Amino acid sequence: MSVIVDFSIFPVDKESSVSPYVAKAVKIIRESGLDHQTGPMGTCIEGEWEDVMRVVSRCFEKIKEDSSRIYMTLKVDYRRGYSGRLTGKVKSIEEKLGPV
Amino acid sequence: MSVIVDFSIFPVDKESSVSPYVAKAVKIIRESGLDHQTGPMGTCIEGEWEDVMRVVSRCFEKIKEDSSRIYMTLKVDYRRGYSGRLTGKVKSIEEKLGPV
Amino acid sequence: MSVIVDFSIFPVDKESSVSPYVAKAVKIIRESGLDHQTGPMGTCIEGEWEDVMRVVSRCFEKIKEDSSRIYMTLKVDYRRGYSGRLTGKVKSIEEKLGPV
Amino acid sequence: MSVIVDFSIFPVDKESSVSPYVAKAVKIIRESGLDHQTGPMGTCIEGEWEDVMRVVSRCFEKIKEDSSRIYMTLKVDYRRGYSGRLTGKVKSIEEKLGPV
Repeated sequence: MSVIVDFSIFPVDKESSVSPYVAKAVKIIRESGLDHQTGPMGTCIEGEWEDVMRVVSRCFEKIKEDSSRIYMTLKVDYRRGYSGRLTGKVKSIEEKLGPV
Repeated sequence: MSVIVDFSIFPVDKESSVSPYVAKAVKIIRESGLDHQTGPMGTCIEGEWEDVMRVVSRCFEKIKEDSSRIYMTLKVDYRRGYSGRLTGKVKSIEEKLGPV
Repeated sequence: MSVIVDFSIFPVDKESSVSPYVAKAVKIIRESGLDHQTGPMGTCIEGEWEDVMRVVSRCFEKIKEDSSRIYMTLKVDYRRGYSGRLTGKVKSIEEKLGPV
Repeated sequence: MSVIVDFSIFPVDKESSVSPYVAKAVKIIRESGLDHQTGPMGTCIEGEWEDVMRVVSRCFEKIKEDSSRIYMTLKVDYRRGYSGRLTGKVKSIEEKLGPV
């Protein structure tokens, strides 16, 4: 459970509204059973490298069915021996900041 | 209110734990008054381009005080004539997916 | 001269071919006088933070004239007291690898 | 040959100089036989999705041997039916710009 990935994917050959396509990727992530959190600019997924990358590949293959041009970004933070970081990282920052 | 930025910044010349430094950036974002949302891999900020970039620059200058090597990433999604997208984008995807 | 930025920008509301728009951004970078290098996935720009970010903003404003939806990514590597890193970083890796 | 990836990876738990570690990743990319191009902020790799991602995974596993915290970014541009884009994309922009 040592990798967190921030993942965005969208077709570039459609009109401005890409949410129907993005929703297909998010559906795959949801059904993967991996811990995740969808935000306005991407979905964070936590898990083992192989498991996370398998889901990313599945999303890519899905979007490819509908699109001839796709853009995707990934940010990966690996930390050995840590887990529960999807909530833990934000909590650790908030503890340093105090209440809003 | 047409730009959303996903922003990450951290020092590379420290030990593994970078949250004390990241917290300083998040503090600046909080105090900016701009709509934002901190996630495990970065903070999303919504606003006018100039306002958002001014906050990003302020964060950079702050982290520079403590560090001689910094890494930063930015993803920007601009959409003319839209606002409230920090919550709107996720909602639009969830409507397409139905309940979890 | 301590910041290197890897910068990509493109409209999302056009057809697949975005190079006419990307070319407009690259033209602005060229004319800025800043050291830069255009690759297949973005343009690297080296300079002081303020100078680099001014050019990035100018590119964004330009692409905005033609497009109602824009995607942009930025990776920033700051290292105090270093310059000439546009070529220096690659050279440093090649020295460690030996000839191809 | 339809995917181009811009790939950066580095350990976060070392001192400022990360090039010895980056060089190990670049070595793996070189030996993969895939078309690639190393720039100041990352290496672009062109190939089929599975082949490119296999190399990325190999780089990740290698850096993990030396480091307990790693940061990685990936930008992916997929375009169906195109190849030779490592040089083709830059050439297409330069044609629109004319000589420097």
